[in-house]
Amino acid sequence: MSSSIGRILTLTTFGESHGQALGGVVDGFPSGIEIDEDFIASEMARRRPGSTSLGTMRNEDDTPEILSGIFNGLSTGTPIGFVIWNKTQRSADYSEIAHKYRPGHADYTYDAKYGIRDYRGGGRSSGRETCCRVFAGALAKLFLRKYGISVNAGVIEAGGIKAEGYEWNPPFPGPLYAPQNKNLDAMINAIKEAKMETDSVGGIIECRVSGMIPGLGDPVFDKLDATLSHAVMSIGAVKGIEFGSGFAASRKRGSENNDPIRAEDGKPVFLSNNAGGILGGISNGDELVFRVALKPTASIAKEQLTVTDNMENTTIEVHGRHDPAIIPRAVPVVEAMTALTLADHLLFLRAYER
Amino acid sequence: MSSSIGRILTLTTFGESHGQALGGVVDGFPSGIEIDEDFIASEMARRRPGSTSLGTMRNEDDTPEILSGIFNGLSTGTPIGFVIWNKTQRSADYSEIAHKYRPGHADYTYDAKYGIRDYRGGGRSSGRETCCRVFAGALAKLFLRKYGISVNAGVIEAGGIKAEGYEWNPPFPGPLYAPQNKNLDAMINAIKEAKMETDSVGGIIECRVSGMIPGLGDPVFDKLDATLSHAVMSIGAVKGIEFGSGFAASRKRGSENNDPIRAEDGKPVFLSNNAGGILGGISNGDELVFRVALKPTASIAKEQLTVTDNMENTTIEVHGRHDPAIIPRAVPVVEAMTALTLADHLLFLRAYER
Amino acid sequence: MSSSIGRILTLTTFGESHGQALGGVVDGFPSGIEIDEDFIASEMARRRPGSTSLGTMRNEDDTPEILSGIFNGLSTGTPIGFVIWNKTQRSADYSEIAHKYRPGHADYTYDAKYGIRDYRGGGRSSGRETCCRVFAGALAKLFLRKYGISVNAGVIEAGGIKAEGYEWNPPFPGPLYAPQNKNLDAMINAIKEAKMETDSVGGIIECRVSGMIPGLGDPVFDKLDATLSHAVMSIGAVKGIEFGSGFAASRKRGSENNDPIRAEDGKPVFLSNNAGGILGGISNGDELVFRVALKPTASIAKEQLTVTDNMENTTIEVHGRHDPAIIPRAVPVVEAMTALTLADHLLFLRAYER
Amino acid sequence: MSSSIGRILTLTTFGESHGQALGGVVDGFPSGIEIDEDFIASEMARRRPGSTSLGTMRNEDDTPEILSGIFNGLSTGTPIGFVIWNKTQRSADYSEIAHKYRPGHADYTYDAKYGIRDYRGGGRSSGRETCCRVFAGALAKLFLRKYGISVNAGVIEAGGIKAEGYEWNPPFPGPLYAPQNKNLDAMINAIKEAKMETDSVGGIIECRVSGMIPGLGDPVFDKLDATLSHAVMSIGAVKGIEFGSGFAASRKRGSENNDPIRAEDGKPVFLSNNAGGILGGISNGDELVFRVALKPTASIAKEQLTVTDNMENTTIEVHGRHDPAIIPRAVPVVEAMTALTLADHLLFLRAYER
Repeated sequence: MSSSIGRILTLTTFGESHGQALGGVVDGFPSGIEIDEDFIASEMARRRPGSTSLGTMRNEDDTPEILSGIFNGLSTGTPIGFVIWNKTQRSADYSEIAHKYRPGHADYTYDAKYGIRDYRGGGRSSGRETCCRVFAGALAKLFLRKYGISVNAGVIEAGGIKAEGYEWNPPFPGPLYAPQNKNLDAMINAIKEAKMETDSVGGIIECRVSGMIPGLGDPVFDKLDATLSHAVMSIGAVKGIEFGSGFAASRKRGSENNDPIRAEDGKPVFLSNNAGGILGGISNGDELVFRVALKPTASIAKEQLTVTDNMENTTIEVHGRHDPAIIPRAVPVVEAMTALTLADHLLFLRAYER
Repeated sequence: MSSSIGRILTLTTFGESHGQALGGVVDGFPSGIEIDEDFIASEMARRRPGSTSLGTMRNEDDTPEILSGIFNGLSTGTPIGFVIWNKTQRSADYSEIAHKYRPGHADYTYDAKYGIRDYRGGGRSSGRETCCRVFAGALAKLFLRKYGISVNAGVIEAGGIKAEGYEWNPPFPGPLYAPQNKNLDAMINAIKEAKMETDSVGGIIECRVSGMIPGLGDPVFDKLDATLSHAVMSIGAVKGIEFGSGFAASRKRGSENNDPIRAEDGKPVFLSNNAGGILGGISNGDELVFRVALKPTASIAKEQLTVTDNMENTTIEVHGRHDPAIIPRAVPVVEAMTALTLADHLLFLRAYER
Repeated sequence: MSSSIGRILTLTTFGESHGQALGGVVDGFPSGIEIDEDFIASEMARRRPGSTSLGTMRNEDDTPEILSGIFNGLSTGTPIGFVIWNKTQRSADYSEIAHKYRPGHADYTYDAKYGIRDYRGGGRSSGRETCCRVFAGALAKLFLRKYGISVNAGVIEAGGIKAEGYEWNPPFPGPLYAPQNKNLDAMINAIKEAKMETDSVGGIIECRVSGMIPGLGDPVFDKLDATLSHAVMSIGAVKGIEFGSGFAASRKRGSENNDPIRAEDGKPVFLSNNAGGILGGISNGDELVFRVALKPTASIAKEQLTVTDNMENTTIEVHGRHDPAIIPRAVPVVEAMTALTLADHLLFLRAYER
Repeated sequence: MSSSIGRILTLTTFGESHGQALGGVVDGFPSGIEIDEDFIASEMARRRPGSTSLGTMRNEDDTPEILSGIFNGLSTGTPIGFVIWNKTQRSADYSEIAHKYRPGHADYTYDAKYGIRDYRGGGRSSGRETCCRVFAGALAKLFLRKYGISVNAGVIEAGGIKAEGYEWNPPFPGPLYAPQNKNLDAMINAIKEAKMETDSVGGIIECRVSGMIPGLGDPVFDKLDATLSHAVMSIGAVKGIEFGSGFAASRKRGSENNDPIRAEDGKPVFLSNNAGGILGGISNGDELVFRVALKPTASIAKEQLTVTDNMENTTIEVHGRHDPAIIPRAVPVVEAMTALTLADHLLFLRAYER
């Protein structure tokens, strides 16, 4: 069940990085939704290795093969099974990572937990599994679209350089998937520099949802911010998340942080959005806003101290075509997990509509 | 189901702030665990209003009445039902909040979602529901104790003042439940000042778990950091969470952020702990470390702009005995959610032990 | 989680027969439903010991105390917590059953599973836990009522005597809660005779749901008949369940068992109902029909062979005020589990309504 | 989520009868289990159309392609994804069933629920989905084998002819997968006769599990008989289930039906097994015994009354290569659902082992 997420709209995934295929099942998807394959392809393209000049040149085919649940171009309400083939498996030399634990990776913890590990390319813990998330997220977006709900994310900090003076007019173009801003070149250069030094950088992604409707989120344990945190924090490289004013809220007075309310056209309007669009775990109709911290890519070619699976001290250099920054390619993944979570809450809300 | 959390060790709660009672059911608790009622009482005491001189003088009795699942002082494996009575209900005047939406509160969103709202004292969205979490967390701690796992949290920032130069030697004393440090008085004063100005402040809580064992956490959606984020973010005032180096990781190079590994006594030792004790969503045996941002208390006596439930503009002053900072009393709540999550993962690990 | 049932409308229960109280939480109940306390009381009354002259004279107070989730007589959408006190605990002598395993009871299996057992009155395995089911079922019925869905059950066989020539015009009167029929007296006498001989009998309950709407039930694992079987089979004394023509279907030809369909007023009408109102796990709008086999009460005063918890051979006579037949009092319990299951499916259907 | 079953060992499936493929994900499967592909193939073979001379001559390839979760022949603890291709899709003429509702089938109910239906070969409601169950069940059996638990089923009634005087020495040979008995020829002939008359018959399958250990099953809603009923009743053609003495228990006295207990080698031995190996929803270590009623195949070539999806009266003859009796091929499916349920309970028991 840990390979499933969602309550009534669920995604279940399988697959190792260098196994035969990845894939999964989207269950609880409403019937009668037109499956826009071009849109799905465009979402997949944003996540694909090689999609951005800042990332790996690795060219993986990520085209999902839909095996069920669609008939005459419409969803039928039955589970949507899909497979993404690992077509370009190279008969790589795994001798380096087969018995050494890569720092910052899950090699040791998988061995500790399962006693066995598919070490080829990181196995199950590889970021490649996020292709399944993006596919399912694209479906969720097609459903949310019917309600006018639009999920967009962008890079607002890279390698320690913050985007400054930006406007939020998504979707944001590559290679960084960041809003236009004074520091955009510096942000890009921070990544390029790290790459040249065989090192890597992290960054921050902001996600905003427009067209929100009030009532999404279920107290007290499935608050909207709680389930979003669960969904987004399950992305490999994510190390932190904050909603609205977030960590800065902890430094504000209540009189500053509470969003004043005014009535407009018979609806409440919030004069600020420190809440990030959520009050008491339920959406208030305002824009949903949160930010996510991603660590630098763990795979670097620099020499690092580590141990073997026999617990002998050694060193390792992780060569290969790795992204110097995972942030650009994580943008569609953050969107996908957000869309899935919102669609699940929306279906719940429908069940209880008065 | 949104009132339940956990997968096999579950907590289900009910109750409104000023209703007859709160309570719940702890299910999946192992049999044969000695129920140390003194320990439970001491945990409850840390959360109780009036427990700290920094908080409300409101004196609520929080004693949980255990109704099932215990026999001769031992857990029997059957569900542990409990009730916490709202004994000191005052026949308060709710006219102010019955029809006005308090800024920073869930009043509007509950109305939008359910069409009806128990406005007395915040109803279901009141922080009072956390007493059930602390009770269940105390049980979880009794189970974790058998494995030598110890969960401790403390305030490391209050009203914008950071704790400086502290050592981690919990449990931390009141009134702030913060580690001894250079700025302790300043932190306390920040709260007192806000109180005098009928305002409120937020802060940051750090939580650390010692005695961790490797293998806790389930890929890919129930990663340990994902489920902890879910559990902790479901606490009302929490607006952000970060693990290990967290948001700071986003500003580090991979070569800095990866924790080097050395072998010691046949076990891996991590020379730093930027990972916060989690790799690939699975505990690595190192100390678990995360931090939580809490917003300032939303209830303040200052005048604020708001609307009525008829969507007319108005103002509100939220009088009553409110905490100028929720952070001290949130410390045991953060611990409780952490202990519940770890105990659930531990039972999973046991199921799959080789 | 095994103390919870349902997917989005859930019931979680706790409590031992002779502990302080039983109770639970109904979560996911829609807001705005009028809580008809008289109706709830009448449902509880049908299950109460002493409610029928055929049963035990034991007089237990089963009045549920509702602790949350209701405001001004309406459900608020928040969890409904309730407690049923064990007021009439007698300081019974448990020496006989504390260390002897009663045949037909769960005494041995609880010890084997948990290593500890609250032996007082059967503890958690006592039929007394069904009072929580009837309470929650009454709430579910209040919700189903809005859709014109009505759940009724009746005894159609007792002590081997089948009801003959009956019409289905529920609700059925006590003491047997059986439809009027040629053999009604014989059915009642079968129970009385067993009682005089310090023995017990079983029987069969039929349950029918009128006002069904098509579309309830979710393929492929949560088919309506699958979830109903789960819910109903979880009632202690139930040993079998069959839908529509049931076991008799296995002796029919396809040409006999398939229900022919005709169109009437733009809707399909089934000329027979061997399907019991379910096709492919989804309700077809026809009357839902199933039957349940209940074993004879396990507690009998006759001497029986058994063993002690030290695995020594011994004999036991289970004295006390036990029902010679559990069937009449099981009628409202079967209805309750059916109503809960249908309400859960109905909410699902609403979530996916086009 | 309705396409998933199990609590910690879960099976999620997808796929339509005549779509591109069926498949699914087995999650929570323990690591380190040797994957015996020959055994899996032999289980699949028993279910395959054309496997028995009594069934359809349709020859479908059911070979599951395992895509993940196995490394060097051992399970890794990560999800096992699999696909079963619909290789032999004929470009059939669906005009007859595209707009007519086949009696005894789910055509109408899918349309009523989803507003759209993949009518090719029954789509999602086709019995072909059970191939995924058998695959997953084979994995579960490999795990249960380690504990000496063995699941076997056989046909004990066909077309109204009961097996008489049989011994239980499984596995049972084809074509009927029934124990050797006086009426075996008559049972087989009943099927052949129905076939000649373009009709179909049903029957009864008995399932027994040897090597049971006490403690499987979780009160009060996830009793072993409750979860088994859920799992088995979710098989398309099943209309009834009974445990131990089952419906016959309802005609027995308590003194007859209670199984007397004797101590033997420090363990309880039950002198009869009316309980079917379950007391209070928990296994008692005795043989698990239940029986399942299957309706006659709904697809028959005889003319039947039905309606079109425009609600016009019409008739239909369902031609094609259909099984005159589903019972032989259902034998491995019943075993599979039983094995999956037991393996799930076994993992739970391990989590709580003292």
